[in-house]
Amino acid sequence: MSICFINGKFSPTDQCGIPVTDLVIQRGVGVFDSVRLYDGKAFALTAHMKRLEKSARLARIDLDDGAAIEKITGVVREGAKRPDCPDGGNCIAKAYITGGDVNENGRFPKPRHFVIFESGGDTPPDEYKLGIALQPTGEGRPYPLAKSVNYLVGLIEGAGRDDIRECLYCPDGKITETLRSSFFIRREGRIITAPVGMVLDGVTRGIIVELARENGFDVEERCPDVSELAKADEAFLTSSWKEVVPVVRVGDAVIGDGKPGPAASRLRQLFKANIDKWLDK
Amino acid sequence: MSICFINGKFSPTDQCGIPVTDLVIQRGVGVFDSVRLYDGKAFALTAHMKRLEKSARLARIDLDDGAAIEKITGVVREGAKRPDCPDGGNCIAKAYITGGDVNENGRFPKPRHFVIFESGGDTPPDEYKLGIALQPTGEGRPYPLAKSVNYLVGLIEGAGRDDIRECLYCPDGKITETLRSSFFIRREGRIITAPVGMVLDGVTRGIIVELARENGFDVEERCPDVSELAKADEAFLTSSWKEVVPVVRVGDAVIGDGKPGPAASRLRQLFKANIDKWLDK
Repeated sequence: MSICFINGKFSPTDQCGIPVTDLVIQRGVGVFDSVRLYDGKAFALTAHMKRLEKSARLARIDLDDGAAIEKITGVVREGAKRPDCPDGGNCIAKAYITGGDVNENGRFPKPRHFVIFESGGDTPPDEYKLGIALQPTGEGRPYPLAKSVNYLVGLIEGAGRDDIRECLYCPDGKITETLRSSFFIRREGRIITAPVGMVLDGVTRGIIVELARENGFDVEERCPDVSELAKADEAFLTSSWKEVVPVVRVGDAVIGDGKPGPAASRLRQLFKANIDKWLDK
Repeated sequence: MSICFINGKFSPTDQCGIPVTDLVIQRGVGVFDSVRLYDGKAFALTAHMKRLEKSARLARIDLDDGAAIEKITGVVREGAKRPDCPDGGNCIAKAYITGGDVNENGRFPKPRHFVIFESGGDTPPDEYKLGIALQPTGEGRPYPLAKSVNYLVGLIEGAGRDDIRECLYCPDGKITETLRSSFFIRREGRIITAPVGMVLDGVTRGIIVELARENGFDVEERCPDVSELAKADEAFLTSSWKEVVPVVRVGDAVIGDGKPGPAASRLRQLFKANIDKWLDK
């Protein structure tokens, strides 16, 4: 069962609500971050909380001089250790900061915070073994500098086909990221991924780039052109929940030989082997 | 005091909430429409409800074969006549359809609905007399085909300066619309406004275009280039709440002679003179 910390205490999530006056409901004024928990230990908690803080600042949501972020960080740690934390502490903690009820000319001085602990849903083992398919779209993520809740465009663009996992944003023919993950291709011996700023500052993305460089991969940070998909040897995506998942098709275009590639597999191995480095003590 | 229809009944809005599990909170899955009420009569109700229906369909939110829209339409009419309708029935009815708790691969089969009746806040008379200023941004409205709650980009881009009313979306140097309104310029004797599809299908926009054509204005539907602002004789915006408001500055660029223009004034007059045509009986 999912639990949620809101209004100063933990409760079953299905008993938690917020007022319809909150601007996250009325105008999408809200930011969030998802932290994966491994056996009750948060993964890359500091990096996620730093990003959450940055997202809130960009959205002009008041953080009470950082006290809000400290409090949320403590809640994630506390929830992760609770006996009622879902799946024995192998789940996802989603921390939200909403705009609250007051809009002072684009500033939000009275935000709300809550953290939901819920099962992440198993990634089907076939996704790692066989890879997944993405749907390309000419749309881009709205305002990728901040991780906001404004996901509707990407949900619309990626929906409608059961064989498609999510959309791949390709504004102006340049590949940026997917709805929920960072995107990489391997081409001519190089790993290519869009630079932060053009895309969300993916925490797992950053770790994978670091691991790749430390392990002899040549990493180039630029937005691949859509036309490069046909020339790519492999593709994959990264996220906290999925770690590294091979992508074997984009729309109707098969990537490489249509099978998961060696870089994705090697990088996931490296990620798993080094995971202790980023786990909360 | 604001009232809200939710879960089958009217209540004070500050007593109404929705669960944190609703996808409008977690991922911005929600559409809405704002209907202005004049003395308890809804303005252009059918057009607004049609747009709400289209927005929900595009977002793949289930409408129960249109029954949901019929019900919401009835709620707006009922609320508008209630003795506790704010400001004697001269207010705004905001109808929301949220994604609910269930995401079936980008389809939302269990939506929630609610309608908030609240004071629209007076438009300061100076806005009509002196005009307002907008902040241009290279960003665009996310997915203008649907009126969704994903407003954060525009709120961020238009905030931070007290002299600025809202942002003006100018993706790729082409002017589309503002955060909350449709945008028009007058240049070389023509009224120019972006075509539906590039912008939200503004109900007041459509009425103003119709009234302008009927009254001898030459109307061109295309996105003006940002460079045309310097050559425009006047500019204005339209919305249900504001009707027609002159725009005298965009960023630091003064429009025309920096004063409200005659077309805005004439079109607002025509709008007011004809308003009965669009009022609910």
